[in-house]
Amino acid sequence: MSVEITGYKGSANNGIVEATTNQPLPKDTQVLVKITHSGICGTDEHYKHLDMVLGHEGVGTVEQTGESVTDLKVGDVVGWGFIHKVCGKCEECLHGDDQYCRNKEQYGDNNHHQGSFGSRAIWNAEWLYKIPAGLKPEHAAPLMCGGATVFGVIETYNIRPTDRVGVVGIGGLGHLAIQFLAKMGATVVVFSSTESKRVDALGLGASEFYPTKGVDKLDVQELDHLIVTTSFLPNWQLYFNIIKRRGSIYPLTAAFENLAIPNMSLVLGGITLQGSVISSRATHKRMLDFAVRNKIEPVVELFPLTKSGVKEGMERLREGKVRYRAVLVA
Amino acid sequence: MSVEITGYKGSANNGIVEATTNQPLPKDTQVLVKITHSGICGTDEHYKHLDMVLGHEGVGTVEQTGESVTDLKVGDVVGWGFIHKVCGKCEECLHGDDQYCRNKEQYGDNNHHQGSFGSRAIWNAEWLYKIPAGLKPEHAAPLMCGGATVFGVIETYNIRPTDRVGVVGIGGLGHLAIQFLAKMGATVVVFSSTESKRVDALGLGASEFYPTKGVDKLDVQELDHLIVTTSFLPNWQLYFNIIKRRGSIYPLTAAFENLAIPNMSLVLGGITLQGSVISSRATHKRMLDFAVRNKIEPVVELFPLTKSGVKEGMERLREGKVRYRAVLVA
Repeated sequence: MSVEITGYKGSANNGIVEATTNQPLPKDTQVLVKITHSGICGTDEHYKHLDMVLGHEGVGTVEQTGESVTDLKVGDVVGWGFIHKVCGKCEECLHGDDQYCRNKEQYGDNNHHQGSFGSRAIWNAEWLYKIPAGLKPEHAAPLMCGGATVFGVIETYNIRPTDRVGVVGIGGLGHLAIQFLAKMGATVVVFSSTESKRVDALGLGASEFYPTKGVDKLDVQELDHLIVTTSFLPNWQLYFNIIKRRGSIYPLTAAFENLAIPNMSLVLGGITLQGSVISSRATHKRMLDFAVRNKIEPVVELFPLTKSGVKEGMERLREGKVRYRAVLVA
Repeated sequence: MSVEITGYKGSANNGIVEATTNQPLPKDTQVLVKITHSGICGTDEHYKHLDMVLGHEGVGTVEQTGESVTDLKVGDVVGWGFIHKVCGKCEECLHGDDQYCRNKEQYGDNNHHQGSFGSRAIWNAEWLYKIPAGLKPEHAAPLMCGGATVFGVIETYNIRPTDRVGVVGIGGLGHLAIQFLAKMGATVVVFSSTESKRVDALGLGASEFYPTKGVDKLDVQELDHLIVTTSFLPNWQLYFNIIKRRGSIYPLTAAFENLAIPNMSLVLGGITLQGSVISSRATHKRMLDFAVRNKIEPVVELFPLTKSGVKEGMERLREGKVRYRAVLVA
């Protein structure tokens, strides 16, 4: 008893490879999902040299469940993100910080046939999220990683509706951060290289917009928080100059370099530089609830969930052309 | 009506200069203090090219008070540190974070005759601390900046008695951090270049001690917090490898360089890099109370409060020979 799964993998020469395998049917707490949508995240780029099915912003329909699955049934629309399974026993899990579980299985951990760029996937039920009625699947997909990453910061670090919050970069993450923050009543201050996204940013809920290309000094009222979502590392001093004393900066860029942090600005300002990765399960569920109630709508570009669709979508993302999240549709 | 004040200043060629002036007697909320003791802090080194009286770990006796001073009287033993006056009106002050007051007057702000390397000083009463009976003045002095800096971290950022806390560097700040943490029941894990301070560190209350010179990888159980008190910046990756997920690192070094922070370690570990500067008034008072009740005893080397004493003490500090805080005595 097995099921055929076709997936789009990376490869040693960075080309996208279509591969079909047969996988055992779901058992215990596993769920077989027929994939209908998948967002394309910048992180996929870091894995495309590997022999693994890419994609970690999946949405699909439950096709079959293992015998221990009680809260999902065939036909349910579910989504999933970076993490597949946690131990439930380590200090991080016991504290509810399960996104930091030290025994977790996640995207990239030898899940050769399990990415969301494919026809089907088999996941543990506990890290599948029921997509609420009212949230379109093409809108749910970008929330699974991009949305969870920025919402995780807001919720975990207690960003308040009374705060002035900076968002650097308007892409998959940034355009969701603007919406979440605007819908909770915060002042959203957006920084982007050029003027080209000003109208979109204000339309998404930004209160202020500042282009930064060639700018040495920003003339901006001080911020309580700054969420950095760019694909490249910014000029940190520029932003340390406009962060409030005891304010916080959240670098979310997946960059494999050192951050050059101005020490005296950090120390004398009592600034917090806070690392953060996606969301805990509890926070992810709150995000979906918040998104539906407040009509958060990812702005998506749709591509077919095929080899050429994967290639085209990833290429547009690499070129910085996507407005604002590429989503593959089966 | 004036009072003669002799002080030891920096100068353009970094030499120590003795200077005597006459200053107006204290008025309003001002207090004239006869200085009996002053700690020598690494920060003095950064100001010794300036024409200002050095020193910001002062202890002395109240000689005269302005007409609005109600809570101090002649003869009281008082101490003072980095900050001289705050506005009481900015957001930081209103939040109780008065050490971040944006209108504060502090060490280095044109207080040409007001450092604690001198015979007398005139300060505002609000930032003078009554030294509790039971705390010797030569022990109180190092608490005014060094002690307040490390205790500020512990108290402000909620370091718990159940935590494993690393202390990097055993000097004026580090040797006090070890004592504060040990006396609150925490596990104190000390890092020092060589083995030379091992016995002292364990005697001060350290639970574990690790030399770091030439070490690429530390074999240490993970830490909840790490307080960095070295006079030079450490190899950050070494410590990011032994910090717990969602753990915190506090760089307290007054270094005018960038910190080279490993981005992926920060992000994936959910690590907090937290700037912090001295203490609020409320925390400073709690520190003094805690120090007396728990018998915190700075380890001091005494030097005469004279030009040659200032020079000798500062030179020993520069050479890294002080065990563990130099204190000038009138």
